[in-house]
Amino acid sequence: MSPAAVEGDGADGLALIKPAVRAQAAYTLRAVPARRKLNQNESPYDFPVELKRAILERVALVPWHRYPDFAPPELLARLADRYGWTPEGVLVGNGSNELIQATLSVALGPGDVVVAPSPTFSLYRLLTGVLGGRYVPVPLGTDFSYDVERLIAIARRERAKIIVVNSPNNPTGSALPADGVERILQATDALVLCDEAYQDFGGPSALGLLGRYSRLVVLRTFSKALGMAGLRFGLGLAHPVVAREIAKAKLPYNVNLVTLIAADLALQHAPLLAARCREVTETRDRFVARLSACVGLTVFPTAANFVLIRCEAIAAAELFRRLYDEHGILVRDVSNGGELRECLRISIGTPEDMYAVLQALAAILPTMPLARKA
Amino acid sequence: MSPAAVEGDGADGLALIKPAVRAQAAYTLRAVPARRKLNQNESPYDFPVELKRAILERVALVPWHRYPDFAPPELLARLADRYGWTPEGVLVGNGSNELIQATLSVALGPGDVVVAPSPTFSLYRLLTGVLGGRYVPVPLGTDFSYDVERLIAIARRERAKIIVVNSPNNPTGSALPADGVERILQATDALVLCDEAYQDFGGPSALGLLGRYSRLVVLRTFSKALGMAGLRFGLGLAHPVVAREIAKAKLPYNVNLVTLIAADLALQHAPLLAARCREVTETRDRFVARLSACVGLTVFPTAANFVLIRCEAIAAAELFRRLYDEHGILVRDVSNGGELRECLRISIGTPEDMYAVLQALAAILPTMPLARKA
Repeated sequence: MSPAAVEGDGADGLALIKPAVRAQAAYTLRAVPARRKLNQNESPYDFPVELKRAILERVALVPWHRYPDFAPPELLARLADRYGWTPEGVLVGNGSNELIQATLSVALGPGDVVVAPSPTFSLYRLLTGVLGGRYVPVPLGTDFSYDVERLIAIARRERAKIIVVNSPNNPTGSALPADGVERILQATDALVLCDEAYQDFGGPSALGLLGRYSRLVVLRTFSKALGMAGLRFGLGLAHPVVAREIAKAKLPYNVNLVTLIAADLALQHAPLLAARCREVTETRDRFVARLSACVGLTVFPTAANFVLIRCEAIAAAELFRRLYDEHGILVRDVSNGGELRECLRISIGTPEDMYAVLQALAAILPTMPLARKA
Repeated sequence: MSPAAVEGDGADGLALIKPAVRAQAAYTLRAVPARRKLNQNESPYDFPVELKRAILERVALVPWHRYPDFAPPELLARLADRYGWTPEGVLVGNGSNELIQATLSVALGPGDVVVAPSPTFSLYRLLTGVLGGRYVPVPLGTDFSYDVERLIAIARRERAKIIVVNSPNNPTGSALPADGVERILQATDALVLCDEAYQDFGGPSALGLLGRYSRLVVLRTFSKALGMAGLRFGLGLAHPVVAREIAKAKLPYNVNLVTLIAADLALQHAPLLAARCREVTETRDRFVARLSACVGLTVFPTAANFVLIRCEAIAAAELFRRLYDEHGILVRDVSNGGELRECLRISIGTPEDMYAVLQALAAILPTMPLARKA
């Protein structure tokens, strides 16, 4: 087809976009090649090759020209079994991001308030803005630990419609205290969206509260601990009547046939994938212990598969650049002028990756004790 | 994990869902096995086996534990080339449904009006409701043909923010006249969302207008003519500055790695897939000619890969049931008390499928002339 040339500056079309959307920055991340990619909290282990093969053999045999099931009953049953909940209360998504969006969409009217910790995953603010809600960030406490009573006080003052908690929290790694979600549910009448994308790596889970609180929605993902970031699979768990409402904002056939088959196989091989997750948490614990011995860096406590550091002996931007340029290590520069000033987030990779990070830090920071094999 | 029992009726949680959402019926479709599945406007031909193999070989070699690209530049370039537009104005989606949702999300504020033909694809109304907009359906004319001037008059009267046109329209098959979209753009100042999910099968396209109108968004899908319903891939085309805004409501990493690879390969084998599309339109034309000779049915004109009929000699519900029970043919019962009273929608399958439909109709309807091989 011969291309139509773009004419004009698009002002006509732009004028029809909501001001709240135009004011938002887009969620972007430039793909940068790196020898050691520690910037997206991915699993450092590719999906097991024998599982890949089993999945692709099944995929080759099913028709591709037919729509997938909305949610195959066997998969819902397996998920219910895995997470200790009822199949009628399980929602599957094209990544858990889709379920964040669906949950906010069905509950958030114009001007309604979303309370969330700060700093946290940026998508909550972005989606609240698109939906015309008001986003009220509540700063985390010292060491970025959760201050549940402060969160409750502000949620009550602002009459929050929705409270979002990410536990462990991205990018800080902080987990809620064991009774945190129940305290929030008891002390407010908000919908509590508990994003447990990283809970496989540590911290308490709110899953056990689902039976008693229909205002609770818990999200999980297969993208992190289960090593399926490339395939996109997440799930939401809620009281069946609430799940039914959230499903209305979910698009039909949202999860494709490959991902449905892969999720099913992953659940059938849960012990294999759990062992890989344990490797990551063990690597994390050893890495954090070494890192904490380093003068010139603050290391924040983490229950996730990443660790947040604050640079003191060097500017974060410089450390970020030198890790990449001199050592091929890509971490995430989350530093801003505010609460995350001079902060970098480092995903936990293989033991070799983390040893390389320690060696690189020792080379860059004169105050860093020489790395021993992590 | 030991399951938590569901307690209570969920009233607490339900009370936090927006009334407009609670009032919506969910989009559901029960999966029913059938020998001849003519109910979802899918391609009757599975994706070519040699292409499947090539895709799965590539999929086996890429890492699954890494997030996919937001939108791989080579794929955007290929799509731009195929649809005659600029890569900066191309959005990829997990099916085109996701791009309907994103477009409505960024433009529709509470109370804003969406004008759309009636009957049409039900998702437009559902999403407008979830977003708090007001949905104004404009009845199609005689034979369900588009009445562009009436659509314009009502859009102007209601000060429509968005006009959605589905051309060819589901479930009627009606295409807009050749100058329809441009007339609408000239006579209103609304955002015009032109859903061309079925345009590969017939009717004019609005793609050529993209260069001149930044208020135009055109959607296409690989689910129908290209036989990729199971993999979910759609795209949106708009002025780059508008595309950038719509992208803000699209979730990051929304299209998984398998689908990105499959879409790329499909574009590289476009002639093969176009030949299959032509087979479907030829089968449709022969089928419609035979069907139109049948006394007791009204057959509406169609430019799509399905045909809408109105039953006169028999109740639609009875014909639907007997086609399935006695002949293993599953069509879509779209009949309602209103404009679609006594209507069924029949997707175009293989020549054998359509011959079987004609034979079944001859057996069920005494007024049907005996089917000859379609």
